[in-house]
Amino acid sequence: MADDLHSDPKPAESLGEIGLFHFAPYLMNRIMGRYNADVQTSLKQQGLTTVKVRTLGVLTVVPGLTIKELAVYAVTEQSTLSRALESLEAAGFVRRQEREGDRRLREIHLTEAGRQEFEKHWQLLYARYQTMFDDVGEDERAQFVATLQKVLKNTRLHDF
Amino acid sequence: MADDLHSDPKPAESLGEIGLFHFAPYLMNRIMGRYNADVQTSLKQQGLTTVKVRTLGVLTVVPGLTIKELAVYAVTEQSTLSRALESLEAAGFVRRQEREGDRRLREIHLTEAGRQEFEKHWQLLYARYQTMFDDVGEDERAQFVATLQKVLKNTRLHDF
Repeated sequence: MADDLHSDPKPAESLGEIGLFHFAPYLMNRIMGRYNADVQTSLKQQGLTTVKVRTLGVLTVVPGLTIKELAVYAVTEQSTLSRALESLEAAGFVRRQEREGDRRLREIHLTEAGRQEFEKHWQLLYARYQTMFDDVGEDERAQFVATLQKVLKNTRLHDF
Repeated sequence: MADDLHSDPKPAESLGEIGLFHFAPYLMNRIMGRYNADVQTSLKQQGLTTVKVRTLGVLTVVPGLTIKELAVYAVTEQSTLSRALESLEAAGFVRRQEREGDRRLREIHLTEAGRQEFEKHWQLLYARYQTMFDDVGEDERAQFVATLQKVLKNTRLHDF
């Protein structure tokens, strides 16, 4: 029956049966809530926002994205990203240029100053990452990342 | 030297060397950004917020928390949680009572109506969870959750 999903809506397990600390979305929200709050606090002291640093970080590895693509990569609303980009452009950290072969599209690139700016903050992000995975060995990290990649494929709306 | 951490601030790897799609905090932010946006959209249609449903969910498994404890469990600012609790109390979904042995503390408990309300929304959360972990087998899920629990211990400020 095509309507099977709706004819029996009762989930196979309750949250109590799974257990709050065994329910992966809950654990991930707890972890990322803490991580993002910590990063935000540290960046604020340096006059930056998470969105700006994420934008610089993404552009160091994937240059030449459009604003639409960048919003997905940087996990940000396009309107928030627009404002961040204006400020990053004014600071000389990013520049925009027409995409070769399609002049309607504007690509965003990092400048050398933008690359240096990200390097300064990468130190902080990397240190937090190391603390998070302190007692997680190399094989376990690799397995963890492999599962995350599967889950991202199952979750995302875009093919990147 | 006590100052070793600061005397050599250069991270061992760059983001480019690790790879954006191999950097666990990035993958987790991508996944949870999508998951939370989807859940928020579905709940909004039913006149609820993520914070309210999280609060109900946490209380189904850990009854009798104080507002301070609940803020940590529900990954929410205390001020936001306060407003959510007022609304949940007015709807008859939670009730407050003095903690036995310490009358200064007020515990928050779910009512039977609150429990039924959460059950209605758990169906949605559970379905999203199943989609996320669609092609992740039982052993892989267990390993993934075990790693998440380690990472939460390394990240959190409280002992719960």
